[in-house]
Amino acid sequence: MSADLPSTPPDAAAIRAAAARIAPWIRRTPVMTLAPGDLGLPPATGPVVLKLELLQATGSFKPRGAFNRMLSAGSLPEAGVIAASGGNHGAAVAYAAQALGVKAEIFVPEITGAAKVARIRGYGAALVQGGASYDEARQACEARAAETGALMVHAYDQAEVLAGQGTLALELSEQAPELTHVLVATGGGGLIGGVAGFYGEAVEVVSVEPEGCPTLFTALREGRPVPVEVGGAAADSLGARQIGRLSFEVARRSIGHALLVPDQAIRAAQKKLWDVCRLVTEPGGATALAALLSGAFVPPEGAKVGVVVCGANTDPGSILEGGPGT
Amino acid sequence: MSADLPSTPPDAAAIRAAAARIAPWIRRTPVMTLAPGDLGLPPATGPVVLKLELLQATGSFKPRGAFNRMLSAGSLPEAGVIAASGGNHGAAVAYAAQALGVKAEIFVPEITGAAKVARIRGYGAALVQGGASYDEARQACEARAAETGALMVHAYDQAEVLAGQGTLALELSEQAPELTHVLVATGGGGLIGGVAGFYGEAVEVVSVEPEGCPTLFTALREGRPVPVEVGGAAADSLGARQIGRLSFEVARRSIGHALLVPDQAIRAAQKKLWDVCRLVTEPGGATALAALLSGAFVPPEGAKVGVVVCGANTDPGSILEGGPGT
Repeated sequence: MSADLPSTPPDAAAIRAAAARIAPWIRRTPVMTLAPGDLGLPPATGPVVLKLELLQATGSFKPRGAFNRMLSAGSLPEAGVIAASGGNHGAAVAYAAQALGVKAEIFVPEITGAAKVARIRGYGAALVQGGASYDEARQACEARAAETGALMVHAYDQAEVLAGQGTLALELSEQAPELTHVLVATGGGGLIGGVAGFYGEAVEVVSVEPEGCPTLFTALREGRPVPVEVGGAAADSLGARQIGRLSFEVARRSIGHALLVPDQAIRAAQKKLWDVCRLVTEPGGATALAALLSGAFVPPEGAKVGVVVCGANTDPGSILEGGPGT
Repeated sequence: MSADLPSTPPDAAAIRAAAARIAPWIRRTPVMTLAPGDLGLPPATGPVVLKLELLQATGSFKPRGAFNRMLSAGSLPEAGVIAASGGNHGAAVAYAAQALGVKAEIFVPEITGAAKVARIRGYGAALVQGGASYDEARQACEARAAETGALMVHAYDQAEVLAGQGTLALELSEQAPELTHVLVATGGGGLIGGVAGFYGEAVEVVSVEPEGCPTLFTALREGRPVPVEVGGAAADSLGARQIGRLSFEVARRSIGHALLVPDQAIRAAQKKLWDVCRLVTEPGGATALAALLSGAFVPPEGAKVGVVVCGANTDPGSILEGGPGT
C-alpha cells in the first residue's frame, strides 16, 4: 500500500464515481440467464444469471481496477506504471497503459501460462518472469518500483483497484436487480472486495476459492489476513498468498461465508460452461460456478443466484483435455 | 416442402407469435457492444453490436426454428421427427426432440465434424452419417421420412423454421433498436429469411457467404434459386447447395446486397473474436463479422452496425491452429 491512498475500502458512492471515470475505457459485459436444468441443477434452484465478465477487454475483469487506479492518479510519472500479477492483472495494466500512452513493466511468476504472457507482451509492456509464486513476483516488483519511481498498480490491495472492480457489481445490479446471492471467485480479494463493497447488505456475496488457495477462507477463520500455501489449477489467477487488507475489512463485515471447492469441481465447471454455453473459461473463471454445480453452495429457498464468470485467459484447447488450463 | 405448410414467408406478426411459442425452450442471448478500435476498424465505423447467438442452447441459433416447427405441428407422430443437416440443425432438432419427449433421426454428411456429431448423439438422437454434402444427406433423409412417417423438420425451407429463426431479430430489435444494418451469414437461408422477414424495410439486412458456398449470391444474380458447388471452411454449416425458396422470396424483396468473403477472412474473424472477446466460433459463426473486418462490407456514414455471431460448434483448439474448425 502506498501512503498516499485511502486506507478504507470504497463504498457504493466511490464505486459509482469509478464507473463514470472508467466508462470510456471498458466494456459493459452482458449477462445471460440459464434454466437450472441447463446446468444439471434441480428446478428449485431457479434461473441462474451469469455475468459474462470473461468477455471484458483483456479476457478478465481486471481492466476495471487498473483503469480506475491510473485515472485516479492525476498525471502519471515518466517511468509509467508497474505491477505484479499472476497474469490477468498484468495484462490489464499493460492494456490500460497502452491505451493511456504510458510505459508499463509487469512482473509475473514462473507459473503464469503462455496465454497470459502473450497478452502482456502483446500490449507492449516490458515483462519480467520469475519466482515460484505471485508473492515472489510482487517482491521483485516492489524493489523495482522503488528504483524507477513508476506508479504501482496493486493487483488487489488499493482502494481505487477495489472501486474499479466493484463497477462490475454496479452493472450487475442494473442488469439483474432481482439477485439475492452473487458468487464470486476470490484470489487476493480485489473483486470480492469491490463487489461486496458495492452491494453491502443488499445482496449476499459468497466467496469461492479453490482448496489449493484458501486465502480468504483462512483469514476469516483466523480473524486476520495470514499467509497460506497456494497451488492447484487456478493458482495463476487466484494464487495470492494473503488476502488484501482492504478486502479483508469488507469481507469481515459483509461476507456470510467463504467456500472452498476442489480442482476437480473447477474442471467440471469449465467443461460444463463449454458444453452448455460454448464459453471457454480459465480455472479461476469457472471457480464461482463450481461452488453451485458441486453443491458446495446450495441456494436457500427463493434465492435468485448470480455467478460472476470472470476470466478466460487460457489455451482454448485445454478445457477439453483436463490440462493445465493456462 | 410439405404440402400442409404455408407457402409464404413469415412476417413480423408470425415471428412475434413464434417468439411467444418458443420462449420457454430457448435462451434470450445477450448482445455486447465493441468499440471499433477493438476490432481494428476506423473510428468512423462507430460501435459494433454483436448478437451472441453462439451462446444459444446447442451452440447455434437453430433451436429457434426447430422448436417453432415442432410446437406448431400439433401432436407429433409416433415416429417422432427427422431432419437432414450439416450438423447444427441436426443438433437442434435432437435437442428439441429430447426436451419435448419424442424420437429424432438425424442425417448428416461425411464433412460434419466431430463436435457436431457428438452433440447430436449426446442429445439421444439416432444419427446416420453419409454422403459428400448436405444435399446428399437431405435426399437420404427424405427417402427415410417417406418410410417412417416422422415429421420432417427442414433445415431452412419451411415457414415455421424461418419464423423461429426470425425471433433472433425480434430480440435484437429490442436489445439494440438503433441498428441500421445487420450482417448475417447465409447458408440455406433460414436465418436471413427470418431476420429480413422480421426487419422488413426498417433495417438493411446484409447477407454474407463464404466464396465457397455462394448460394444466395448466385440465386440473386440468376434471379432464381439455382444449385451451386459448395466447399471450403464453413461448408458444414453454410453448405446448402441451393437457397430455400421461401428465403429467396424474402431476399429478393428485402436484401440490398449479398456479399462473399474468402475463407482466409473467415479464419481471421475467428481469430479476432478469440483475441478480442475470448469467444470461440466455428467458421460459419464468424462469417458475418468477416465481411466487416475484411472490408467486404463498408458501413455507410452514420450506420449503426449489428453482427450476428451465430455458431460455436467446433473444436475450441482449432481456432488458433487454422485447422478444419469443425
